[in-house]
Amino acid sequence: MNTKILLGEDQIPRQWYNIIPDMPGPLAPVINPQTLKPIAPDDMLAIFPMALIEQEMSPNRWIDIPDEVREIYKLWRPSPLYRAHRLEKALGTPAKIYYKYEGVSPAGSHKPNSAIPQAWYNKQAGIRRLATETGAGQWGSSLALACSLFGLECTVYMVKISCTQKPYRRSMMQLWGAQVIPSPSEFTNAGRAILAHDPECLGSLGIAISEAVEDAATHADTNYALGSVLNHVCLHQTVIGQEAREQMKIAGDYPDVVIACCGGGSNFAGLAFPFIADRAAGKNVRCLAVEPASCPTLTKGVYAFDYGDTAKMAPISMMYTLGHDFMPPGIHAGGLRYHGESPLVSQLHHAGQIEAKAYKQNACFEGALLFARSEGIVPAPESSHAVRAAIDEAVLAKEEGKERTILFGLSGHGQLDMGAYDAYLSGNLEDYEYPEQKIREALERLPKVDL
Amino acid sequence: MNTKILLGEDQIPRQWYNIIPDMPGPLAPVINPQTLKPIAPDDMLAIFPMALIEQEMSPNRWIDIPDEVREIYKLWRPSPLYRAHRLEKALGTPAKIYYKYEGVSPAGSHKPNSAIPQAWYNKQAGIRRLATETGAGQWGSSLALACSLFGLECTVYMVKISCTQKPYRRSMMQLWGAQVIPSPSEFTNAGRAILAHDPECLGSLGIAISEAVEDAATHADTNYALGSVLNHVCLHQTVIGQEAREQMKIAGDYPDVVIACCGGGSNFAGLAFPFIADRAAGKNVRCLAVEPASCPTLTKGVYAFDYGDTAKMAPISMMYTLGHDFMPPGIHAGGLRYHGESPLVSQLHHAGQIEAKAYKQNACFEGALLFARSEGIVPAPESSHAVRAAIDEAVLAKEEGKERTILFGLSGHGQLDMGAYDAYLSGNLEDYEYPEQKIREALERLPKVDL
Repeated sequence: MNTKILLGEDQIPRQWYNIIPDMPGPLAPVINPQTLKPIAPDDMLAIFPMALIEQEMSPNRWIDIPDEVREIYKLWRPSPLYRAHRLEKALGTPAKIYYKYEGVSPAGSHKPNSAIPQAWYNKQAGIRRLATETGAGQWGSSLALACSLFGLECTVYMVKISCTQKPYRRSMMQLWGAQVIPSPSEFTNAGRAILAHDPECLGSLGIAISEAVEDAATHADTNYALGSVLNHVCLHQTVIGQEAREQMKIAGDYPDVVIACCGGGSNFAGLAFPFIADRAAGKNVRCLAVEPASCPTLTKGVYAFDYGDTAKMAPISMMYTLGHDFMPPGIHAGGLRYHGESPLVSQLHHAGQIEAKAYKQNACFEGALLFARSEGIVPAPESSHAVRAAIDEAVLAKEEGKERTILFGLSGHGQLDMGAYDAYLSGNLEDYEYPEQKIREALERLPKVDL
Repeated sequence: MNTKILLGEDQIPRQWYNIIPDMPGPLAPVINPQTLKPIAPDDMLAIFPMALIEQEMSPNRWIDIPDEVREIYKLWRPSPLYRAHRLEKALGTPAKIYYKYEGVSPAGSHKPNSAIPQAWYNKQAGIRRLATETGAGQWGSSLALACSLFGLECTVYMVKISCTQKPYRRSMMQLWGAQVIPSPSEFTNAGRAILAHDPECLGSLGIAISEAVEDAATHADTNYALGSVLNHVCLHQTVIGQEAREQMKIAGDYPDVVIACCGGGSNFAGLAFPFIADRAAGKNVRCLAVEPASCPTLTKGVYAFDYGDTAKMAPISMMYTLGHDFMPPGIHAGGLRYHGESPLVSQLHHAGQIEAKAYKQNACFEGALLFARSEGIVPAPESSHAVRAAIDEAVLAKEEGKERTILFGLSGHGQLDMGAYDAYLSGNLEDYEYPEQKIREALERLPKVDL
């Protein structure tokens, strides 16, 4: 009886799966926030290399993974697929539960799957330095790692309050050689403007994005890198789902439902898109995106054009959104606190091709605790959303007396998030749910795009 | 070109390798600290199950691993063996560097290799609860995990100052269901005696051992578990070296030198013992134990009978020691701060069969930084000692213009030790070296055992 299914290094995918040609319709254009007109590819060259801009809108179903990227992937890929025998037993369910574990990367999450190729393509384009933002620190540390491995400099604008609350993540970035700048900072116009108005400002992801983009746009040798949302980020993450498909074959199984947590969307996309592609071959697989009830983009937002950031400097995309000035409550799943959603994931949801579900955080930590005590691994707070949903699917299977094969994504470990578990164990975790009235108000401030 | 060599679950060893029949001479007896006479096996039944007592002195070279233990090992074993291509390149060395990585366990270190079987044998003996001590928290969290998986209760006496300094490790133990008691506590005579004398006492590993042993000895349903030093702990860790031997075979290589950090000795034993066994077949492999200059047991201690703990309650063993009242400075490699040493490792060193080397901590963190920036993984402070020694062997090979095959043990990851890296990066790390005069004084207080 196997517990985990491993693949050899030669089975790391050689191509990423690009879902664009298989989407239910054409992609909506990306809109310039100043002109409210569609952006041309060249408009993005100030902050992205052409190779990534091309991936952003490529019509090709398969895109080769550079050898140099595959070589680095070998440090932790292929990641293991586990059969959760002990969790199944603890639940007394007839369901079979599998999970794909991305916490084996040096940064502890799936984020390096895209950080590595982003650093590589920028290096190839002659870029010397990458700028980015980070909140909880998962993306910042992954990009710091990637830059370290390719000899690029890395500047991370880290939300000021997170620098204090997540000092270990800040240290990891510095260990990998990145410069970490608490945001808002004196280094950018955006930062200075905020500080002039509010010297004590603790920062936000929106402000940090503005600083990183400005840094990249104003330095010829510097580009910007984003850790989720964009099409090319979802593309890079498809190594997860492709490996999982092969591993499920070895297990002699195929999932009835694929479950992943969903913030900006790249983790969900990475696991689910290769399975969605199987539908063309007649496979009948449900895909479930799980989000926090405090940031219920897919379950309570609207599908509309909206800005990517609070400051209205980032491009406008057609996506599910809670409104660009949505202020998410301080839940522990920091990686899921984004007002918008990957346009690809959004379009699939709008077309009814995927499902979405929202959970409050106590329910997620309850699931994560059961998981840790039966399977050993401590889930990241983000991943705990997928754990919870998988448990509920397994319990439903038990109630219905049905077999069911469940595959979920365990996107990262939670060893740097023990403060969150402390709060849960001591009963001090608040169950935020975002008020519908506030969402309605925010949605009245969406941009008016007229194509 | 392979980066890592993986084995399948069916290649997890089916037996542990017991070095006792292959030792250079008979084992010295273990001495009762009260009577100063040899201990009989039955004397230990108050705190250990018979199965472990038998393993402690077994004459059998191979000891079967129970199926239930192998099933749990599958959660992370076989652990990967890596070829450090990027580190070799950064050093410009002709040497080949391999490392065996134990940080993939749910607790992040090699400790669960023994925690799992210890919990299992106690469960089989009808024990309901295990008591132990922990300083840095690696062992306490591993035993908490093991108890959680087998449905045992777990009480961890955690050095009081560590509860504050290492809150994440405390939380991990609680997450896995353990009761964590700051030591000294009001729960034991040993703790109460200390507190009566010094209510503000911040605790020490010696006091915590006394509390855990007393707890086990005074409750019929409770046993004690130790995370290193003892023969049966070294035995359990030999899964590391056995797997590494098979993986080196797949790589088509054999190490000229095997390197591991050495505190209580079980990590070193686990990697090195199966290679030492190869000498009978004519293999010429050096084995190097690396310790901190601040706690230089093998390099500056003496080989003599000494107490296992400060309070003189634990058995007396023949071992390398710095004296039982040795107070190690507060270095970051908490797992290497023990005055004594595994009797097996000690005897091998005394017989000239292994080498030992001591490093100051800044040199270790310097090596760990180079490693993290080339190989990605952040080493635990303990493991950084082996990293440093491996780098020095590789640099020597370069200077001598010789090929050399180096295998070292990366016993754990350092993601919960970022404070130590912070101190190193900011230049605030002190380079303790233990004064020889103090060692000489401490050695005058060794027990007088007359057999």
